[in-house]
Amino acid sequence: MLFRKVAIVGVGLIGGSLGAALKSRKLAEEVHGIGYRSCTLAEARQRGCIDDFTIDVAEGVQQADLVIIATPVSLIVEKAREIALSIPKGCIVTDVGSTKKLITDQLDEVFAGKALFVGSHPMAGSEKRGATNASKDLFDGALCILTQTPNTNEAAIEQVLEMWRGVGAITRVMKAADHDRRVALASHVPHVVAAGVVNVQTDDSLECAASGFADATRIAASDPQLWSGICLDNAREILAGIDVLTKELASVRAIIERGDEQALFERLRRASQRRRSWEEAKGKPET
Amino acid sequence: MLFRKVAIVGVGLIGGSLGAALKSRKLAEEVHGIGYRSCTLAEARQRGCIDDFTIDVAEGVQQADLVIIATPVSLIVEKAREIALSIPKGCIVTDVGSTKKLITDQLDEVFAGKALFVGSHPMAGSEKRGATNASKDLFDGALCILTQTPNTNEAAIEQVLEMWRGVGAITRVMKAADHDRRVALASHVPHVVAAGVVNVQTDDSLECAASGFADATRIAASDPQLWSGICLDNAREILAGIDVLTKELASVRAIIERGDEQALFERLRRASQRRRSWEEAKGKPET
Repeated sequence: MLFRKVAIVGVGLIGGSLGAALKSRKLAEEVHGIGYRSCTLAEARQRGCIDDFTIDVAEGVQQADLVIIATPVSLIVEKAREIALSIPKGCIVTDVGSTKKLITDQLDEVFAGKALFVGSHPMAGSEKRGATNASKDLFDGALCILTQTPNTNEAAIEQVLEMWRGVGAITRVMKAADHDRRVALASHVPHVVAAGVVNVQTDDSLECAASGFADATRIAASDPQLWSGICLDNAREILAGIDVLTKELASVRAIIERGDEQALFERLRRASQRRRSWEEAKGKPET
Repeated sequence: MLFRKVAIVGVGLIGGSLGAALKSRKLAEEVHGIGYRSCTLAEARQRGCIDDFTIDVAEGVQQADLVIIATPVSLIVEKAREIALSIPKGCIVTDVGSTKKLITDQLDEVFAGKALFVGSHPMAGSEKRGATNASKDLFDGALCILTQTPNTNEAAIEQVLEMWRGVGAITRVMKAADHDRRVALASHVPHVVAAGVVNVQTDDSLECAASGFADATRIAASDPQLWSGICLDNAREILAGIDVLTKELASVRAIIERGDEQALFERLRRASQRRRSWEEAKGKPET
């Protein structure tokens, strides 16, 4: 057993799936859920995501050796402050937020001298929500990025790495600022763009949408509350990403307008080749 | 049997899959492939896509009652002129091009008084290419748009509709110009954008790309030759679509920059809701 008692704060799709994965892979003796609503927590327990639950944070984190904050990004810092009031000394804390710089800076401070914080971002999940859609295999083959700061405890990050690998994830460690810049381009901007592609459709054009549209916009169906939080939290990097993409679109637009077949082919060929290389390299462990 | 002899000009992913579908569903007595290279045609025959093949167009269309032009968009008109020289009088001709206005205008003229042309656009296929990836089930549940002009023969369009329905497609009939406008927004612009999203990635950011990126950019891996042809053929509508999307992105950018949580939530909520409604309505027959 990697952990004796794990407390998961926020038992939604990610928290619930992680609980189920920890239990099924025997990485924790007990998994406790902490949330707002007993009925959804009871459902999560029934689905095998957690062993027990409470709506009282202080009670939930008692004697835990790992606390996982799995709320939406916009609630993580607030929840961390509450947890810090009663967390057992030396307990490891991680979060699962899709942005990392602001969260890491603040949680490092909130838990300083109290608990050992390590930031995590499991890049799993989907447009589905809630513990009702939880799956113990959600992290199988998924990328999970951990953040390291000068304050990060070495033993704690090793434990958290072991947990993510234990549930099947491929792990990378980087600085929070690097995470935010890279993930803005690779995940946040594509989300904003997918929502834009949906929003510019007319009722007429939607009738002509097929499998390409389905793939390209699947992420646009994601939880708007969660994603507005992410966009505002990582605003600076996302704005930079939107600017780069807008420039790229303007450049392709000019190529199409002047009917430059060779330049257009070259642009599309580069995208096709990069996308294929990425697909092939995907899932290979960090070098 | 719907047709006695079907000739497919261009036995790639779409042509090969259609051949296999026609054969497996017994919609044609014989399916002949016409192409440039005997070796790829022989492979298509071996895979059950066609019964026989030739590299001679005149020979291939002899005694056909349906000719399907399944070349890339940029070659359709040229190929049609060649076919028109030897097509049996009264034969039905369709194409599978992803753009329709220019093709329909020209093929109506090319085949006037010779054969009965009906434009088709089966919205199936993927980033995979060639008859080696052909599947007899490719059109199952896929949308297929047929175009109608004042010249379109009623009996011919009925036959072509019956063929697409026979291979499992959901059909719609519209004017070619309407097709091009609607499909630019729902398919062509998303392709251009997906390629752009890939091209703006850095090597660093690609290392942080996960399942959302995979979905959003799957279509960017498509054949660049095919897609540069489509973009240039439907340039006017695609440019208009890029402009609408650029405006939408600028508007979302401004919302993020000013940190307007309510407006951002509203924008993402609208996208999420529309995407979900579309998913639910998808596949329901035309009303």
